[in-house]
Amino acid sequence: MDEQSFQRIQPDGDEHERLTCTRCGFIAYENPKIIAGAVVEAEGGVLLCRRAIEPRSGFWTLPAGYMELGETVEEAARREAWEEARVRIALDGVLALYSIARIGQVQVLFRARLAEPGWGAGPESLEVRPFAWADIPWGELAFPSVRWALRHWHATRGQPLSAPATNPPEDARGTTPLEGSAI
Amino acid sequence: MDEQSFQRIQPDGDEHERLTCTRCGFIAYENPKIIAGAVVEAEGGVLLCRRAIEPRSGFWTLPAGYMELGETVEEAARREAWEEARVRIALDGVLALYSIARIGQVQVLFRARLAEPGWGAGPESLEVRPFAWADIPWGELAFPSVRWALRHWHATRGQPLSAPATNPPEDARGTTPLEGSAI
Repeated sequence: MDEQSFQRIQPDGDEHERLTCTRCGFIAYENPKIIAGAVVEAEGGVLLCRRAIEPRSGFWTLPAGYMELGETVEEAARREAWEEARVRIALDGVLALYSIARIGQVQVLFRARLAEPGWGAGPESLEVRPFAWADIPWGELAFPSVRWALRHWHATRGQPLSAPATNPPEDARGTTPLEGSAI
Repeated sequence: MDEQSFQRIQPDGDEHERLTCTRCGFIAYENPKIIAGAVVEAEGGVLLCRRAIEPRSGFWTLPAGYMELGETVEEAARREAWEEARVRIALDGVLALYSIARIGQVQVLFRARLAEPGWGAGPESLEVRPFAWADIPWGELAFPSVRWALRHWHATRGQPLSAPATNPPEDARGTTPLEGSAI
């Protein structure tokens, strides 16, 4: 990739600078990306995946990943659950909607149950298993939003879903990096 | 823009083809984009904007638009309300989360109130005004999701927010274009 040819230029009629190829004029619009995922109840606990890839390889996360073009956010959450945790899930509804402004992400996290028995490690996971609430590895979670979602899941467990949780007061814009994390 | 140089190529380790510049190797990831907006209550009705721009110029819509990098989805909804309807809003919470798979959009629509008195047409609006429920111009709405959101707003008005509405059964994936609309 010839990074030299891309510069930040404000197109006519636009209020923002855009990454523009000065050779061919291609404008690469950089918008926030959507992460779709789920807190999946299994055996009375929550299914977590130990990451096999960077960032935060070896740490525990929810089955979640980048939504692709052509799918709905619900389809993306179900696809990611299969890809990362080899689990077929049924969605109850939206549990949380987090903005991580620092890295241009919006995370849509569903409350979900097993639609079929069984789970397993997909190619991006080292290990996948349910954790009882008392056993959640709080010190080994991959991202702050995993902690936020787990806490909200637990606080609202067994209740009808209400308006989705948004960022907690201590990080209202999603700008605080996890200690020891590059992201 | 030299469109000839961009081709759909599957990068190593990726499960999807990506728009790749065959000259410089730049990969333009195309992910779904987020529309942030609000159903804003004003004078007992709902604030609508008559679009001054294509698509659907002249038709009525909610104040909403593309979320930008570096902001939260709440900030995006407030910014768009100002840009399009010259209104300062306070958000109650997430009213609806719609996927329009056909055009790669996820729409996050909040229930909102006026934070300050007053509204007006921003540069992308011909006209902005509140409509009483009985006067909503159903035949002149810009997009199906405007109709979906207004109906859900009305059905849940005055109640605590519950899990956000998702696509209605008649268009569960957001693939049905509005009659007479190019999008």
